[in-house]
Amino acid sequence: MDMNFAIRPEIKELLVRVSDMVRNEIMPLEVEYHAEIPKGNRWQFTARQAAILEGLKATARERGLWNFWLTDSARGVGLSTVEYAYFAEEMGRTPMGAEVFNCNAPDTGNMEVFERYGTATMRQNWLEPLLNGDIRSAYLMTEPDVASSDATNIAMSCVRDGDEYVLNGEKWWATGAGDPRCAVYIVMVRTGDEDQPKHQRHSMVVVPATAPGIEKLRPMQVYGADDAPHGHMHIRFVDVRVPAENLLLGEGRGFEIAQGRLGPGRIHHCMRAIGQAEVALELMCRRSVEREAFGRKIAQLGANFDIIANARMKIEQARLLCLKAAWMMDRGDARAAAPWISQIKVVAPQVALEVIDQAIQMFGAQGISQDVPLAAMWTHVRTLRLADGPDAVHRRQVARAELRKYTQQKL
Amino acid sequence: MDMNFAIRPEIKELLVRVSDMVRNEIMPLEVEYHAEIPKGNRWQFTARQAAILEGLKATARERGLWNFWLTDSARGVGLSTVEYAYFAEEMGRTPMGAEVFNCNAPDTGNMEVFERYGTATMRQNWLEPLLNGDIRSAYLMTEPDVASSDATNIAMSCVRDGDEYVLNGEKWWATGAGDPRCAVYIVMVRTGDEDQPKHQRHSMVVVPATAPGIEKLRPMQVYGADDAPHGHMHIRFVDVRVPAENLLLGEGRGFEIAQGRLGPGRIHHCMRAIGQAEVALELMCRRSVEREAFGRKIAQLGANFDIIANARMKIEQARLLCLKAAWMMDRGDARAAAPWISQIKVVAPQVALEVIDQAIQMFGAQGISQDVPLAAMWTHVRTLRLADGPDAVHRRQVARAELRKYTQQKL
Amino acid sequence: MDMNFAIRPEIKELLVRVSDMVRNEIMPLEVEYHAEIPKGNRWQFTARQAAILEGLKATARERGLWNFWLTDSARGVGLSTVEYAYFAEEMGRTPMGAEVFNCNAPDTGNMEVFERYGTATMRQNWLEPLLNGDIRSAYLMTEPDVASSDATNIAMSCVRDGDEYVLNGEKWWATGAGDPRCAVYIVMVRTGDEDQPKHQRHSMVVVPATAPGIEKLRPMQVYGADDAPHGHMHIRFVDVRVPAENLLLGEGRGFEIAQGRLGPGRIHHCMRAIGQAEVALELMCRRSVEREAFGRKIAQLGANFDIIANARMKIEQARLLCLKAAWMMDRGDARAAAPWISQIKVVAPQVALEVIDQAIQMFGAQGISQDVPLAAMWTHVRTLRLADGPDAVHRRQVARAELRKYTQQKL
Amino acid sequence: MDMNFAIRPEIKELLVRVSDMVRNEIMPLEVEYHAEIPKGNRWQFTARQAAILEGLKATARERGLWNFWLTDSARGVGLSTVEYAYFAEEMGRTPMGAEVFNCNAPDTGNMEVFERYGTATMRQNWLEPLLNGDIRSAYLMTEPDVASSDATNIAMSCVRDGDEYVLNGEKWWATGAGDPRCAVYIVMVRTGDEDQPKHQRHSMVVVPATAPGIEKLRPMQVYGADDAPHGHMHIRFVDVRVPAENLLLGEGRGFEIAQGRLGPGRIHHCMRAIGQAEVALELMCRRSVEREAFGRKIAQLGANFDIIANARMKIEQARLLCLKAAWMMDRGDARAAAPWISQIKVVAPQVALEVIDQAIQMFGAQGISQDVPLAAMWTHVRTLRLADGPDAVHRRQVARAELRKYTQQKL
Repeated sequence: MDMNFAIRPEIKELLVRVSDMVRNEIMPLEVEYHAEIPKGNRWQFTARQAAILEGLKATARERGLWNFWLTDSARGVGLSTVEYAYFAEEMGRTPMGAEVFNCNAPDTGNMEVFERYGTATMRQNWLEPLLNGDIRSAYLMTEPDVASSDATNIAMSCVRDGDEYVLNGEKWWATGAGDPRCAVYIVMVRTGDEDQPKHQRHSMVVVPATAPGIEKLRPMQVYGADDAPHGHMHIRFVDVRVPAENLLLGEGRGFEIAQGRLGPGRIHHCMRAIGQAEVALELMCRRSVEREAFGRKIAQLGANFDIIANARMKIEQARLLCLKAAWMMDRGDARAAAPWISQIKVVAPQVALEVIDQAIQMFGAQGISQDVPLAAMWTHVRTLRLADGPDAVHRRQVARAELRKYTQQKL
Repeated sequence: MDMNFAIRPEIKELLVRVSDMVRNEIMPLEVEYHAEIPKGNRWQFTARQAAILEGLKATARERGLWNFWLTDSARGVGLSTVEYAYFAEEMGRTPMGAEVFNCNAPDTGNMEVFERYGTATMRQNWLEPLLNGDIRSAYLMTEPDVASSDATNIAMSCVRDGDEYVLNGEKWWATGAGDPRCAVYIVMVRTGDEDQPKHQRHSMVVVPATAPGIEKLRPMQVYGADDAPHGHMHIRFVDVRVPAENLLLGEGRGFEIAQGRLGPGRIHHCMRAIGQAEVALELMCRRSVEREAFGRKIAQLGANFDIIANARMKIEQARLLCLKAAWMMDRGDARAAAPWISQIKVVAPQVALEVIDQAIQMFGAQGISQDVPLAAMWTHVRTLRLADGPDAVHRRQVARAELRKYTQQKL
Repeated sequence: MDMNFAIRPEIKELLVRVSDMVRNEIMPLEVEYHAEIPKGNRWQFTARQAAILEGLKATARERGLWNFWLTDSARGVGLSTVEYAYFAEEMGRTPMGAEVFNCNAPDTGNMEVFERYGTATMRQNWLEPLLNGDIRSAYLMTEPDVASSDATNIAMSCVRDGDEYVLNGEKWWATGAGDPRCAVYIVMVRTGDEDQPKHQRHSMVVVPATAPGIEKLRPMQVYGADDAPHGHMHIRFVDVRVPAENLLLGEGRGFEIAQGRLGPGRIHHCMRAIGQAEVALELMCRRSVEREAFGRKIAQLGANFDIIANARMKIEQARLLCLKAAWMMDRGDARAAAPWISQIKVVAPQVALEVIDQAIQMFGAQGISQDVPLAAMWTHVRTLRLADGPDAVHRRQVARAELRKYTQQKL
Repeated sequence: MDMNFAIRPEIKELLVRVSDMVRNEIMPLEVEYHAEIPKGNRWQFTARQAAILEGLKATARERGLWNFWLTDSARGVGLSTVEYAYFAEEMGRTPMGAEVFNCNAPDTGNMEVFERYGTATMRQNWLEPLLNGDIRSAYLMTEPDVASSDATNIAMSCVRDGDEYVLNGEKWWATGAGDPRCAVYIVMVRTGDEDQPKHQRHSMVVVPATAPGIEKLRPMQVYGADDAPHGHMHIRFVDVRVPAENLLLGEGRGFEIAQGRLGPGRIHHCMRAIGQAEVALELMCRRSVEREAFGRKIAQLGANFDIIANARMKIEQARLLCLKAAWMMDRGDARAAAPWISQIKVVAPQVALEVIDQAIQMFGAQGISQDVPLAAMWTHVRTLRLADGPDAVHRRQVARAELRKYTQQKL
């Protein structure tokens, strides 16, 4: 009953500038940016690609449209989570959006980790260049051999050896680790044994991408695409050594760090998904009033009115739910906000997938092709139903939060 | 981006009092109130029923918890539509809720009509007793012989004859017209012919329930129940005469009146449906942690976690959408608010029906019986998918509003 | 790959006669039959009701259209389950259908029980008059105080006392027990204790409806309707005594009897539901080509083409699945057929409910009223999602059958 | 009521051999076959790929497991459509399946066209090598500039010039045209003008892939994958000349040929989709009994029982519907069978997509990767909702067939 999703006037002005840049300067370059996939070594940027991306970044930075994600820091604009949500939606309209404004995952989450828990050296080596958009980073969590939906299964070995830790094991779906600019990883490892409580057996370690013993086995494909030059890498660690101080916060505190990291990140992901759903709905509507079949506008055929109306209704509801989750987050009680984050984590990708799929259907075969951004949007959003916990795990969280109102019993 | 769903502190205090009275004083009397269906003539209140209902009304009125619906009038509390929405949800938790606080449909809409367009006589005869909760009223719109989803089909004849109008035709689904306290009808009639624009052919007429020529043909049943002593009547008008001044606002202005009437009414209906969905979810959760089968709590069986989580996610979204529609309404641009009203008109009943149905399933056969309120809630909410325009008509409105962003063409 | 859903030519001829009688002789009398609900004592047949029903029964019997359910007996027509399925669909088109041909539940199941396990006395007292359509019977399974979805919870006490058994406890949802012609009950009781295997603790007992100690507490309502004069009774047993021979087959064999009883019964229920879905689709189509709104036939508006197409596709699939379950049944391996029965038990009612609901929506407010049979069809079919095991239990059976292909482990 | 889905014993024996070969000889080579994507020129077969594919083909042919699709010809096995459907399901379990047995689209349809309407030269040049599996072919229908869902929009120009026809225009989604073995195209063109009836303006022309003036513009991507070395080509025709006899059957008879071509082809597609759904369900079940999370088998978590049960129920129903469509086809009345083909065209891909998507979700991130066949299956089946008419067009056909039962009016 105190819910307020309004943003301050000066922030609204800023948002309009982001929105304009997204629509008028970034989106028009999208096709060119993506068309130029390098032959041969796909894991590099062509000169033209680099020019487009770095040019847009420079422009954004000059305009002060940079690092919005620093929601509560003196270094950023000082957006609330609710305010940031609106920015995330706008940036989400195009795949380049987040990076142009230096607000892209997993860098934002990693930067937060460095800021809160990093040593001075880490801040200098990794945080500063990340804040400047000079390097990129990856977050290594998921492993091929265990069900990572239950993160307590994570098994990568990390053993203390004098002043160092030695890491062994495999990680996959290291998003962005294929990017030639990716310089550092934050890695979830297992440091504790069965004697310790389930959520105190794991730690987070900072590992330079160039550390000896790291082998990039292959890019993981997403519905057949390798997402070069960015990509999701399958990586093997063989006796990778890092200084002991690279273990963040202390042994066994990995989940503590992860929790703080994931809340806002999920809201960003979800609002970006809403941005994509809006793009899909716009494409669908434009198509339906331009194209004809059977003597009528496509809009007037079959269930298309209903499809469009349902899309609008679902997007509105999903957005409002995200804003509510953001508002809960802003109230400062992470525990109370958690089930709301879980709710949007389920809802927003599902809505976006459904709307994008409907738009694809409205475009016919063109919809699944490289000529419209819909297919790429779909596969990207599809990964969100798995990343940071599959739907089923989040539904479980929501249900348990609901049932706790009526029983003390642990269900 | 200016969205604010907060309510003022003094209003919140009021809301808490309503909420407490609903839960602690009204709901406990529900079973007793409904159990006592009079045998023989079902269209009357038994002494005990009257005592319960009028007693609660008197209490509410004494406490100043009365006529909240007067959202923008000096006579009411002066709630905004957003604020009222929260009250509607609370009152919606029980079938008696709205009436106890004199906020029940169709009286609220009818009172608004009397207040805005009524003569001094009408205000004295009908508005005052309605504001006091002494009489009730009905709104006669739908007709058996035409598709009322397209309200321009309405055909009841209304012909000027000197100082009078003469009405002939049939109306049905006159909700509340079976109530022995129902004293007056507002009736949509056709006064114009084909020469006039489609939306200027109809008028609204005030008709006393006792006017000669009115015959109550039968109660319409809702899934087999007659909803006595309230009920939905099928009524025939044969040469029913009213003074010419009983035609409100002027010939051909029926739709103009209807539009103003329906917006807030739909929000109230929808928020009451949300209230019922919350009750259903609560019942479902309580059942699922109390009852056992196959050696486990029902909550732990099958897809029940998912069912509970989905219910929570859908209710939250539907509520937020209703609040947004209310907020749009408060901004004063009825035309801009219209598609939002249509959105909630589709969404809220569907969500409530789904949650109630799931709750019924969780209760087993008891769920469809008179022992729990779920079945009655379901049939009541089911009527909302038809009343004030079926889903299909509202989806069409939403789609057309969406497409207008991209084309001038009328689709 | 051996699947054959064909029926023999002579049976097809019989089916056509049933179909004709349903459409041309029974359905035209439906409205009159149901309109006449007796005032005062609702649990009796008016003279006109009795005349209609008994007249139709006499006609059917004369024509040899009688007791089709006797699928594999020398006394019946000797239909296979597949063949009977087609008859059930036809009879299911109208609520009177099954009874007119003496194929109504729960009598058919009860007759089978008497035939297989009954004593000579029982056959004479109950089976013969049931086969003649002179009396009716009820099947008392569900209890108010336990989750009957897990039938091993059933708790009605049945204690041997010399040559008699003494029954104590409550049953509810005794369908048909309100019918004044209902003369006998088959009752599931608990005879064993914790020492015995879970499925050998229960027995079935034959109890005359007139036995001292039986009290009909009240009719259970289905969405507000009492289904008089047939009805679902809540019944209390206080020291009800029956001869020991009334316990069928032996103590602890209740589930053995129930299993044999439920398989075909579920197929009949499901095919009757398909019959109702067909009626709903026909009503929907007729309405949509007759009624106009917004200047077009309703069929041409909104998503109605899709709604009609989806209804057709779902009905076809559900019918074929029922036929497959029937065909599995005919192969004689009840254990192999069980998951198929569970499948249709979930699918058929859901499809019927969806189609009926869509038809209701297409009819507008008339759809939920007494003027079309849709609302009554809906509430009737809704009970099928609970009777004989709720959906969740049957889905569980289907899933476990599937998983057994890949693991020995009991899940 | 005459429905019979049984297959002859000798055919069943043949089917078992196909099924065994699919599971034991083809599927084990799948990973190796697909892993080896040639770098550089992707539109060729590596030696190892060719060896695998041609080896399997030779084996199949030797065993007489070849050209099953010749359903009613003296040259084939003489399968009925129902019988062939079972084979299509088995072959559909693996992407190589259909080709190994020389039953792959679009070659089967093209071969039928050559057989029915081809000249002696065509039979010699194209039909024989196709029957032998020596070359491949493509079918060019869809165009980039028109809504091909309404095939009367097809616009490629084809003008008579002496003894030749001259073709100009663009086609896309020419499936298989990227295959280096693809030697011939069947092309839908427009030969008539507005004066002629809508369905008599088009013709089919046979065009050698090497004809001067043909330019392969690019491969169309399907969700980011180019499906090399097979692929879907975007092709431009500039003054492509063919002998006049290459126009099949006569000017204006294109749709006549297309109709005969599409019916069985759609059944094959749908049954192959069922085969894929079965593979997905099997993978899902195996995963769910092998993998653990939160201390239990995945099968036992959340809604997984329901997901598995629903998958089984939907697959069964979709298969039965396909068999019914096949059976309708076998009855010889193509017009009567048409709405059944439309039904399965909507149902089978949707069911397969849903089951595959659920399987992907059960596998977590691995599900969308190259490590399991699910993602590739999903994108493949997704194209079926667009190819040969989008869902909306087929639903419309089904609805109109339904409504024709009740009205003469053309809707």
